[in-house]
Amino acid sequence: MPRIHPTRLLDDLNHLRTFGAEGHGVVRPSLSAADMAARHWLRERMTEAGLATTIDGVGNVLGRSHQRGRALLVGSHADTQPQGGWLDGAMGVIYGLEIVRAFAEDPTTRDFAVDAVAWVDEEGTYLGCLGSRSFCGMLSQADLEAARNAQGERLTAAIDAAGLAGIAPARLETQRYVGYLEAHIEQGPYLEADRKKIGVVTSIVGIRGCRIAFRGQQNHAGTTPMPRRKDAGVALIDFGYKLRQAFQAIAGPQTVWTIGRVSFSPGAASIIPGEADMILQYRDPDEARLDTLERTVYDLANRANRAGPVEITVTRNRTPIAPTIMHAGLQRHIADAAERHAPGAWVYMPSAAGHDPMVLSAHLPCAMLFVPSIGGISHDFAEDSHADDIVRGCQVLADAAAAILSGGT
Amino acid sequence: MPRIHPTRLLDDLNHLRTFGAEGHGVVRPSLSAADMAARHWLRERMTEAGLATTIDGVGNVLGRSHQRGRALLVGSHADTQPQGGWLDGAMGVIYGLEIVRAFAEDPTTRDFAVDAVAWVDEEGTYLGCLGSRSFCGMLSQADLEAARNAQGERLTAAIDAAGLAGIAPARLETQRYVGYLEAHIEQGPYLEADRKKIGVVTSIVGIRGCRIAFRGQQNHAGTTPMPRRKDAGVALIDFGYKLRQAFQAIAGPQTVWTIGRVSFSPGAASIIPGEADMILQYRDPDEARLDTLERTVYDLANRANRAGPVEITVTRNRTPIAPTIMHAGLQRHIADAAERHAPGAWVYMPSAAGHDPMVLSAHLPCAMLFVPSIGGISHDFAEDSHADDIVRGCQVLADAAAAILSGGT
Repeated sequence: MPRIHPTRLLDDLNHLRTFGAEGHGVVRPSLSAADMAARHWLRERMTEAGLATTIDGVGNVLGRSHQRGRALLVGSHADTQPQGGWLDGAMGVIYGLEIVRAFAEDPTTRDFAVDAVAWVDEEGTYLGCLGSRSFCGMLSQADLEAARNAQGERLTAAIDAAGLAGIAPARLETQRYVGYLEAHIEQGPYLEADRKKIGVVTSIVGIRGCRIAFRGQQNHAGTTPMPRRKDAGVALIDFGYKLRQAFQAIAGPQTVWTIGRVSFSPGAASIIPGEADMILQYRDPDEARLDTLERTVYDLANRANRAGPVEITVTRNRTPIAPTIMHAGLQRHIADAAERHAPGAWVYMPSAAGHDPMVLSAHLPCAMLFVPSIGGISHDFAEDSHADDIVRGCQVLADAAAAILSGGT
Repeated sequence: MPRIHPTRLLDDLNHLRTFGAEGHGVVRPSLSAADMAARHWLRERMTEAGLATTIDGVGNVLGRSHQRGRALLVGSHADTQPQGGWLDGAMGVIYGLEIVRAFAEDPTTRDFAVDAVAWVDEEGTYLGCLGSRSFCGMLSQADLEAARNAQGERLTAAIDAAGLAGIAPARLETQRYVGYLEAHIEQGPYLEADRKKIGVVTSIVGIRGCRIAFRGQQNHAGTTPMPRRKDAGVALIDFGYKLRQAFQAIAGPQTVWTIGRVSFSPGAASIIPGEADMILQYRDPDEARLDTLERTVYDLANRANRAGPVEITVTRNRTPIAPTIMHAGLQRHIADAAERHAPGAWVYMPSAAGHDPMVLSAHLPCAMLFVPSIGGISHDFAEDSHADDIVRGCQVLADAAAAILSGGT
């Protein structure tokens, strides 16, 4: 069986961390200068590992094996959140690279075809899962032209600035692949709390999101009597409070919801906010519960609109993502390898976070492996995992990959 | 008696409106290019009206009469809110100019000394009531150097950019003045609702404000189970909701409070806010009630801190302003003039908004006159008043000024 090299794995992971490093965290939003520098470095590493490597027209780094036979695609995304951790995405990318190298060094696997990939913009700086969606041919030119970041800058301008204009996007050749494997930090507290070392992902939760806009009447904060006010900020706070109560009443054990952003306009101490805005996101493994949650948001808005005096509008701010089931055969190979390297210390679990396999699984078999996150912290500079957990996870994924390519799915 | 000229008054008011005009409103924050252009234009008008005019080292435009004897100071502020109305401040400034002109044209008043003034930054772009506080000698060099706008730009840099570096600030000569008069739009709904044409201001409400900071733990919005979250945004919404209930229970008939600004950090749809921030302001004519309101804010924060999991800190974000009583003798002169021009259609009333006389009244007798605001709307582009109300208000103030300078206070 191929053996991954722990220090080579950790060295590369630490080197990738330097692109956009800020304290303990990383600021490497997709297509930024730091992200592109990381992608050029990854391309060199993949080429060194013997792959035919390209950076495609949206920024995906794809390394193709020269070996014959059906290939396994292994990787993750290389971009980060605006204030991201150093492992989110990055770990799975370096796993892919390390598995290619370990396979080439082992006589039992050196003829196996493993392709490595570093997807772009999974985090949605411009367009969530941009890289995998482009790879699967799911994006039109109009989609690309409409995408902008939070500062209003166009994706197409970022692609130009990254030096990728005119380069063709890579496209999935379905017949080439036996499947796609992605490793990731858990980003949640369950593995650590249960003293497990490996999570075998069964499904990825569905995600929906909306923008809730409140329109009142801007006015002077001193001279406008309380009963005459149409305060959009008061309406937002009231809505947020009642939303929590309503969601608590209907939530399942894995339901989560988050108000990640709010704003009051014009946003001055002496002015009653005339407009206010809230971004709500909620996730659940059960599509029917997602429907119930969504209906509740609209019900609350309708009730508040009937009462007045502020006008509330709910609009979806993202394409809903349905819960995604991972491929059973690939899951079993990961579970077998986990039992070998962490006997009794692995678990089947859903993923509460979204990942590129949500997109890819419609087109090829996918599976995912989780390693524990310290304190369950992620999407934060403090994100971290223990080195031995990182190393173990890579060996488990390598074993699973070898078994899949030896035996089929 | 001197007669003000309605069309000259309205023409100048409309001309002042053009500096920073945006639709029906005006964007003329203090010391901006638009504000400085307006001040240079005002200086020319005051000079034409026969005054010895200066723009001082903070931006106040001050026109001094050449007449002997004690003078009356008449004016208001020329700067606006970030999205301001066209009359807030501007109307009182043009009243001062017009009264100087009308007095010079009338044989009974041409020997009276009336000084005109356009204060700077009453709205607090950098430092609330900057102009009047500087005029009264209440600001240290350290105060000026510490002041910044919401974008973090320094007041001293704005003064440099406005071409005012090295110019001395004008200082109040207490012995020169018999008092200060300021006219203003009401900015509230009471005059219109009661079909009154003139408000004689009895006092200005006290104002207090604080920043309430919420510190939780930033984390992934998918993978962090609800019971483990330390969501600063949820804590802010909860606090805002309970604050409203608590304030409603103790509010007096003229208490108002406003949450004018909130922010969640980092402010992304997929991230649990690790920090959140709220700006609260509240006003009342009664100092004891202001104490009760403030105690309530701290009590709510203490209770929430005991419950956890988010840490709440309350800090005053402005120097508290005590309620200010207007000068009884000057009030009476305005009331007499109001009864002459609007018999039975004037009223004594408190001001719910802050104004420069809050500062000036500690140093010289002050009084204020209000004219009705359409719909009670102010601090908004839609702010407006009827032309006949604007004209009547100026004549009332001119009559009062003539009576004050004829008879003394």
